[in-house]
Order: sequence, then structure tokens, then C-alpha cells
Amino acid sequence: MGIISEVNERLRRARAELENNEIDALLVTNTKNLRYLTGRDTGRALIGRDNAFLWVKELYLDLYSELYSNEGYEFEVRIYEEGAIKKFINKSGIKRLGIENIGISEFNRLSREIKGELIPCNIPETLRAIKSRYEIKFLKKSADMAKKGMEKAHRVVKEGTRELDAVAEIEYEIRTLGSETPPFGEGMLLASGASGADIHAFAEMKRIRSGSPVVVDLGARYRGYYSDMTRTLVVGRLSKKEKDLLEFVENLELEAIDRVDVGTKASEIHKFVEEEMRKRGYKFYHSTGHGIGLDVHEIPNIGPNSEDVLRDGMVFTVEPGIYIPGEFGIRFEDMILLKRNKIEMLTR
Amino acid sequence: MGIISEVNERLRRARAELENNEIDALLVTNTKNLRYLTGRDTGRALIGRDNAFLWVKELYLDLYSELYSNEGYEFEVRIYEEGAIKKFINKSGIKRLGIENIGISEFNRLSREIKGELIPCNIPETLRAIKSRYEIKFLKKSADMAKKGMEKAHRVVKEGTRELDAVAEIEYEIRTLGSETPPFGEGMLLASGASGADIHAFAEMKRIRSGSPVVVDLGARYRGYYSDMTRTLVVGRLSKKEKDLLEFVENLELEAIDRVDVGTKASEIHKFVEEEMRKRGYKFYHSTGHGIGLDVHEIPNIGPNSEDVLRDGMVFTVEPGIYIPGEFGIRFEDMILLKRNKIEMLTR
Repeated sequence: MGIISEVNERLRRARAELENNEIDALLVTNTKNLRYLTGRDTGRALIGRDNAFLWVKELYLDLYSELYSNEGYEFEVRIYEEGAIKKFINKSGIKRLGIENIGISEFNRLSREIKGELIPCNIPETLRAIKSRYEIKFLKKSADMAKKGMEKAHRVVKEGTRELDAVAEIEYEIRTLGSETPPFGEGMLLASGASGADIHAFAEMKRIRSGSPVVVDLGARYRGYYSDMTRTLVVGRLSKKEKDLLEFVENLELEAIDRVDVGTKASEIHKFVEEEMRKRGYKFYHSTGHGIGLDVHEIPNIGPNSEDVLRDGMVFTVEPGIYIPGEFGIRFEDMILLKRNKIEMLTR
Repeated sequence: MGIISEVNERLRRARAELENNEIDALLVTNTKNLRYLTGRDTGRALIGRDNAFLWVKELYLDLYSELYSNEGYEFEVRIYEEGAIKKFINKSGIKRLGIENIGISEFNRLSREIKGELIPCNIPETLRAIKSRYEIKFLKKSADMAKKGMEKAHRVVKEGTRELDAVAEIEYEIRTLGSETPPFGEGMLLASGASGADIHAFAEMKRIRSGSPVVVDLGARYRGYYSDMTRTLVVGRLSKKEKDLLEFVENLELEAIDRVDVGTKASEIHKFVEEEMRKRGYKFYHSTGHGIGLDVHEIPNIGPNSEDVLRDGMVFTVEPGIYIPGEFGIRFEDMILLKRNKIEMLTR
């Protein structure tokens, strides 16, 4: 399957959802949703029940012509001009226009300009949660880059190295492997000693000390698809408490993954992890995991209040962590694929 | 000035805006706004006319206690629990609650839960547009890292080097200098040959060829503050057309900067650039520039429809670019500070 047939299949699924929700057309402006539904991450798209339009800057018409000039491509591509899209929508007699989770100020502006009713929906995000074989191929490649980045981490994380120097080495490795971006939005996380207890700690100029667990959370991006994995590396000798917790958290990750199955509620996986930690006297301060694909965080949310149900074709992370303020943090995370009732660990 | 007195001054300015807009209290959830108004980028804050509350996860209470336990810190820090904030807001009798530009689905949820009226506003973003001396210090340090990154680019961008390998070297340099993140959200931009005509091109595995302008757009982050600069490097000998355009674009950048003054409309700077390009037979496909600080893109917007006016204390970019699809791209960008009617170029 190439990108054209892939996009056409996605359009078919999107239209089924439009029908289910009695929506006449869907306006797409989010770059990830654009990439998913149009094949490129630029412009603005309007997907109707039996037509599809894409407005792009004149500049891009030429750059992306290979895709847009393809006979099988359903989108009618037009040059974007100020006001063109709202005029088109109003002329088309669209009564119920599906929109993404846009900001309230943009929503209010659209409400004034569009005659029809605006229906907030998350149709593209819901479709994106189920990965096709085409997408899984890219996710695996991206996960492989993360794995190799972690191998590099094992080599460079050692006593006396500055956190930021280790990060520079690991990110360098991931980039030269071909990752389209550095890990995630804001770079990878590498936190030694007490910084490990800060879930979102940035690497600092400080040196890694012996006898410290070091949380390393990294990923890559290949053909738009992100990967994400975490290991807690050991520098020097840990205390008994640290060693026991390290083993506990890694085992808990694997036990939680054992409970993953098609039809399982995501919140139940989270509750299991939370309960196991509680039994041992610890609180769990974040969600157990998240779907991953064109965004680092997408559906399903494996958290306490999630209403998501695990489905065939989902790819998501499982990442329990224990954090002791002032002392250290420990987290293990893998990306898993749920396919035909089997679990495949993409980052092991 | 330390962070505490800095935060208190920001609170004072925020409250003046609350009064101007007849808003009883402002709910802050955006991480950049949190960082600006509370000194840290976690939790949720509520800023009233004469009080201020910050809810954080129990885990962070300890991590950030140095800040929060300071006597001069106005925020009353509380442990975050599900539903605690909306209960507090409803009990406080807040009639008009200021909110940021949150997503429409979150807005609708809040509307159901909060008794008072929700008033979308951009008070924190407006305040953030004017930088204090404290902030300018960090922006300059961040700009210095970008400059050094660009010096590295001059050394590694050469014939035969793969784009991604050059990127890996430059990002490595920026990280080891102490940048908290890789450049921007998605890494730096390095685009040679025809890719240069794609405004958002990602670096690829392809080798840089001789006789090609190479667009290099990079930055750093120091103490939360981003920097951003672009140069178009020359590899080998350019054609006359390329050479002339390179000179034209760089001169145009400097001429546009010459027109910057306190009280000037941002849109006028953009119109000048657009008009100069038009005279030469080219279209201008993006905005002329953007404010920069805790976000890479913030107020002011130097674009065609901007209503922003340039003010003392603003820091923003000026970045004209010309793109010839299928051939090449050229862009020059600097970060400038407008202070006491003088312009300081932070990236030259």
C-alpha cells in the first residue's frame, strides 16, 4: 500500500464517522490530522461526504505536486487565499461542520464567520488510534532508532559525565540514524540523582555521580511517526532500597503489559499499576501510558479517568515510575503493539 | 532582581489588566504562562485581585519548596486533587473568570462545571510581549548559543556532507553549550538545494551539493528563553541569480530592521518587506517575524493582518525569505531587541 491508497482508506473511515455523527463536512487544520488525512502536513482540508478539498499556499502547489497530481488522489487542490475557505463553506450549504479541538478564540471567530453549526469532534484522532500495517512499519523503524539511542545511552552515561554532554551524544546518535527530529518536542530527558524525581526534569550541566539511578527517556521520529522509551540506568552501586525499587518497577511494567488485551479498559491497566504501588507504600504521580503515532501523546490514554478501550491495532506506551523527592526517580517504559490479540514490544 | 520580585511585578501587572477587563480572577494552565506568572511550569494557578493560589502535585511540593517557601512569594501553594480547583472557584463567588485560549472541548467542560462566566483573554501573553531586564539577560545568553551554533554550521556545512549529519553536529554543539532543548520544537532546519524552497523542510539523508544555497535556521533555550536565527550559507559557487537574491534578501532584512521603532505598526514592517519583494517580482510566503521569549512564537506578530504595535522592551525576529519551487530558498533572520528607541541585534 502506498500513501495514496492509505489516504483513501482513511478518508473512507472518516466519512463513515461523519455519517455516524450526522456531520456534513469536517474542517481539518491540525498539522498531524492533515498529514493523516491528506498525506502532507500543510494547508487546510475540508472533507465532505463525497468530496474533499485541500487549500495550500501557492508555493506548496509545486513542491507537493507529485502527490497532488496523482490520479488516485481524491482531494481537489486549490490555492489558499484569505477568506476563501469560509466563503466556500458558506456557499456549500453545510449545516453541520465538524471541527477539531481548536482554541476558544479561533472557535469564536469561526462561529461568527460560518453560517452552519460548528460541531467539535475528534474524528481524526479516533481514527489515528488504530494503526495500519503501513503505519506500523514506520513505528517499528522509529522504535529501532530509539533502541539504538538507548544503547548509546548505556555507553555514555557514566560517573563524572555532565548530563547535558551525555544528552548531546545520544541525540547526535539518534539524528545520524535518520531521525527527522530530536526526541519529542523538547529533547530527551536524562535525570540523575534527585533530578530523577522531577518527572519533567531537563538535563543540566551537573555531573552524573556514582551510586545514582539515571532516568533516560528518549525517542525518534521516522516518516512522521514518533517512538518513546525509558530505562533507568545504574551508575556505580545502588542502595538496597534503590535496587529493590528498580526491580519492582521493571517487573510491574511487564506485569501491566501482561494484562493488556483487546477489550480491556485502559483505566484498568492504570488501576492495577496504581494499586501495586499503593501496596508497597508508594503513590503513582502520572498516567501509565499513552498512544503514540504522528503525535507523541495520542489516543488511548492509559490513565485513571480514561474511557478508552484497548483495540486491535493500537500502539501505546506502558511506563510506571516511582519518584522519591530529594532522592531519586525510577521509570521503565516500552512501546507496545496490540495486534491479533498478541502483544509485540517494539522497544525490547 | 531575583525570580521572586520578578514574579511579584508580573502579578502586579496582571492584576492591573484584570481590573481593566473587569475580571475577578484568572485561571492559568498553560505551562509557559505558569512559568511567567508563578516561576515554575507546573500545576494550575488562580490569580485573584488580591490573592493568588497555586495547585501542584504532592510530588512537586517538595521539589519546588525552595521557591514556594520563600516569604516574598505571594502564591498560597496547595496540593492538587481532582475537582479541587473548580470547587474552590465556585465557592469563591467569582463572577467573571478569565481563561486562556484553551481548546473548545476543555472550554465546554469548564462551562458546565463553573458557575461564573468564562472570559477568554490573553492577559499573560500580552504581558509576556514586554521583556524585563531579567528576561533580556537570558534571551541574550540564548542568542549567544544560537550564534555559536551558527559558527559551527559554517564549519560543517560543505559539499558532500549529509544534511542530517550536519544537523547532528550543530545540535550537538548547541546542547553542549548548555541549551535546555534542541532548537525549537522539532529540531533545527537545514535545507539545501530545492528543499530550501520548502519553508518547513526537515533535514534529510541527502548530501549537500556544490553550487547550492543552504538555509540554516536554528536556536537554543536558556532558562526557558528561546533564540532563533537563520542564515543562508553558500556551498561552492552560486549562479548570478542566486547571488543577487542572497544579497537582496540580506539587505532587505536590514532595511526592514531600520524601520523598526516604538509605536510602529508591526503590519507596516511586513508590508514594506512584501512590497520590496513584489517590486522585484517575488511573492512573500510567510510573516516577516514573531516575538520570542518563553515560546518560540509569541506577541508581536509581524505579519499582514497583525494589529500589534511595536513597543519598548519587545524582542522579536525579522526574517524575509524568497523561495523558488524546484530550485532553492533564501532566508535571513535575526532576533532584535527594541529598547529605549534603540535597536539591538541579539544574533549579530
